[in-house]
Amino acid sequence: MPPKSRTLKLHPKDNIVIALADLAAGSECTADGPNALQSVKQGHKIAIAPIAAGQNVLRYGQIIGQAKSDIAPGEHVHVHNLGMGDHSQDYAFASEAKNLDPITEGRTFDGFHRADGRVGTRNYLGILTSVNCSGSVAKFIAEAAEKNGFLDEFPNIDGIVPITHGTGCGMSGENEGYATLMRTLAGYAQHPNFGGILLIGLGCEVMQVSALVGDHPIRADGALRYMTIQHEGGTRKTIEKGLSELRGIAELANTATRKPAPVSELMVGMQCGGSDGYSGITANPALGAASDLLVRHGGTTILSETSEIYGAEHLLTRRAVSERVGEKLIERVRWWEDYTARNKGEMDNNPSPGNKRGGLTTILEKSLGAVAKSGSAPLTEVYLFGEKVDTKGFVFMDSPGFDPCSVTGQIASGSNLIVFTTGRGSVSGYMPTPCIKVATNSEMYNRMSEDMDVNCGDIISDDISLESKGRDIFELFIRIASGEKTKSEELGFGGVEFVPWQIGAVM
Amino acid sequence: MPPKSRTLKLHPKDNIVIALADLAAGSECTADGPNALQSVKQGHKIAIAPIAAGQNVLRYGQIIGQAKSDIAPGEHVHVHNLGMGDHSQDYAFASEAKNLDPITEGRTFDGFHRADGRVGTRNYLGILTSVNCSGSVAKFIAEAAEKNGFLDEFPNIDGIVPITHGTGCGMSGENEGYATLMRTLAGYAQHPNFGGILLIGLGCEVMQVSALVGDHPIRADGALRYMTIQHEGGTRKTIEKGLSELRGIAELANTATRKPAPVSELMVGMQCGGSDGYSGITANPALGAASDLLVRHGGTTILSETSEIYGAEHLLTRRAVSERVGEKLIERVRWWEDYTARNKGEMDNNPSPGNKRGGLTTILEKSLGAVAKSGSAPLTEVYLFGEKVDTKGFVFMDSPGFDPCSVTGQIASGSNLIVFTTGRGSVSGYMPTPCIKVATNSEMYNRMSEDMDVNCGDIISDDISLESKGRDIFELFIRIASGEKTKSEELGFGGVEFVPWQIGAVM
Ligand SMILES: [Ca+2]
Ligand SMILES: [Ca+2]
Ligand SMILES: [Ca+2]
Ligand SMILES: [Ca+2]
Ligand SMILES: [Ca+2]
Repeated sequence: MPPKSRTLKLHPKDNIVIALADLAAGSECTADGPNALQSVKQGHKIAIAPIAAGQNVLRYGQIIGQAKSDIAPGEHVHVHNLGMGDHSQDYAFASEAKNLDPITEGRTFDGFHRADGRVGTRNYLGILTSVNCSGSVAKFIAEAAEKNGFLDEFPNIDGIVPITHGTGCGMSGENEGYATLMRTLAGYAQHPNFGGILLIGLGCEVMQVSALVGDHPIRADGALRYMTIQHEGGTRKTIEKGLSELRGIAELANTATRKPAPVSELMVGMQCGGSDGYSGITANPALGAASDLLVRHGGTTILSETSEIYGAEHLLTRRAVSERVGEKLIERVRWWEDYTARNKGEMDNNPSPGNKRGGLTTILEKSLGAVAKSGSAPLTEVYLFGEKVDTKGFVFMDSPGFDPCSVTGQIASGSNLIVFTTGRGSVSGYMPTPCIKVATNSEMYNRMSEDMDVNCGDIISDDISLESKGRDIFELFIRIASGEKTKSEELGFGGVEFVPWQIGAVM
Repeated sequence: MPPKSRTLKLHPKDNIVIALADLAAGSECTADGPNALQSVKQGHKIAIAPIAAGQNVLRYGQIIGQAKSDIAPGEHVHVHNLGMGDHSQDYAFASEAKNLDPITEGRTFDGFHRADGRVGTRNYLGILTSVNCSGSVAKFIAEAAEKNGFLDEFPNIDGIVPITHGTGCGMSGENEGYATLMRTLAGYAQHPNFGGILLIGLGCEVMQVSALVGDHPIRADGALRYMTIQHEGGTRKTIEKGLSELRGIAELANTATRKPAPVSELMVGMQCGGSDGYSGITANPALGAASDLLVRHGGTTILSETSEIYGAEHLLTRRAVSERVGEKLIERVRWWEDYTARNKGEMDNNPSPGNKRGGLTTILEKSLGAVAKSGSAPLTEVYLFGEKVDTKGFVFMDSPGFDPCSVTGQIASGSNLIVFTTGRGSVSGYMPTPCIKVATNSEMYNRMSEDMDVNCGDIISDDISLESKGRDIFELFIRIASGEKTKSEELGFGGVEFVPWQIGAVM
């Protein structure tokens, strides 16, 4: 059965459509629109309305550039007739922040209500580590607990999760790399998907357990214990005492059970990895529709990956709720320009020759493929990597594009769900937060269906609308949040994917 | 029983001794030497010969500075009468490179002889990963193999070691960070302690499996297979095929058995972590004696941790066998000055106020505490992080001081033994290479004896000579290399300590 539709209009306001297959000249573009004036390759754009020279070209309802000459309906739109003016000062802060209509259906999910008011979607015990040097001992404690049937007594606990990493020492104790790691570890220690935390240090590391724990209870429920290997007198003694500390924590964590919570308590970290030519036209805009739905229900969605939205920051500043929020985003972009320059690189998200062959014309258009995940909701706040997100609505958290690192920041910030679009097929999972995998194309979905939770390939093959797919994803948010397992949870992922952002020299 | 000696002379050429306890004025410094002219605190220096103003003060037989005024025997030597002239151009390349007398006893260890001529001290199967995103699958394959008794058929194989990490993507594909990771992964893939390698990638990462494997066999024995999760069609299929590939590798690896090899085939990575006031007077110089012994037997020892030898590079350039080798070291030091500066830090290894209270006077003296591990052998070559070491004798490999990162480089360079001095008590282990832990003091050794292989505290408490302790360590090298397990191997360490040096921006 051939595809029902051979082009895709990504937003009602768009004045172009995307060819879903190589089209011959004269092909019909849309049922009620023009025919193609030239042959157009798959993934390329065709005008569906007259666009005068200088007028904006819209994709996802967003500006991707301006016509360099008059463009007729049916005409191929690409580098020959679409350009981008210098817009570097044109932030137009808050000019396009339009609130979405709230939905007041009172939808709920079944979650774990925590003492700090947040709601978890899982109830794990975490064994957190301040430094690589205590990572093995954290794993030994988890293994010993598993071997002795520790959790049999605690049926409400989902599992024991050692969180290990490759840093925590060989670093300055006062720069932004240290502050970033501190935020990340604190965010995990307080995460609502943990019913309790055992924190293990070595003892002599730069990232001191005492600095992490601070003067006041880091968890409102008191379900945190800590110890260092050097203080306890070595590996075996730490394992022994760790098991006994874990029992105290487990008794607290086991009192939690799933109870209804408004979906406004969902905080969804949005991510893409292993993108392909379909990411920007299927999975990402479908996720954007789901994001808008969750925002309309009062929930929170987080966009990140600063290096991959570079070039589209001017469109996010327009969606910012205030000049202050827009300026915070620009400040992160400037920080990134410095970060890459001092590391002898540069921010470069321009379409590559391959991108251009695939139909992407401008840096705005390319970056919008990533931004499409965020739908059309106003941008309510901008956060640092791993900073606690305390605002509802659509927010931005600064991070690299590198998947495990970006997701680590989103979880540290409080995400109790992750949704991850992928074209090539990324398979990772991220404890303690479930990760929903959304395939951009049916070929990969069919080949890797054991790892994928959602297929967006049928947006093309079966003419499923982005809105309908967005509703499906939103409903899956609720089911997964209520305890249904994702594919990556069923497979047991999450043991190595905690990757704090290491900024600065390793000393 | 009080200590037999209350001072320590670290080298026959030294003109100072170290107080091993707080000494009152009039205390005897050495059996045949002067009495203390003032009271002197533990860890501080006392002259045992007249030192004229401007004359060199020697510790470890090495210059740590010049007398600022005439110093009498028995006088306290510290910041008031010891300084350091500007020596920044005074590299005196190769001026003090004196070959040690070779020892031709024909000592051997029992090791695994590999097709490339190197000799392993262990015979593991490695499951190597190009990127964080394939780490969980590597672990799943190892777990599945363990569960089904895979190794029962292969009695000569020591175990299956998944090597996972937090990088491999979100990076440039052409800078020195990429080249460093490539060397590190290639070094592990070829390591003689692996009888065979299964290499797993995701598929879409920057660090491509195909680039790593290259055009020619990366292992002379052909015991390497590779696959990507995306090509195989997901997690379960990769585990299934991985187990079958592992069988082919195991059949090759299982043909290896331990056979005598000259100790000149030992390559020992030397490391210190969690240093204390005793590191520079007990464990490090004792290891220096062991290093000299191994070098005299034709073997190789590797000093690293560039940030911790900073300030003593002028002494290493003197020990360099040639101006070329000395200049390679200085080139690395200059690189580090730039690396830390561009990361908004600085190289600063100067004695802190605490160091000074403990008796350390100059940056040379402090850095020499770390360099003391290398004894007095000439410096035969300088290598990049993870670069294959192909020279005998004492060599330097550039690395951070951060233990797991530095050891990762030393193993990638080919170390088939690691020896790690520690004052505070570091407990980690580093697959696939056994790691010998050497305690600097008896208090920590007694408290953490289940983790420590050697106690150097008795150098002070029982007047054991550095030479005698060095011989003990050398003999332990041979036993561990021949199959005796270290404490950290018995405890099962090594699952999280692979930490490639991440240089540059995470993108
Ligand atoms: Ca709440
Ligand atoms: Ca991406
Ligand atoms: Ca990503
Ligand atoms: Ca050190
Ligand atoms: Ca170290």
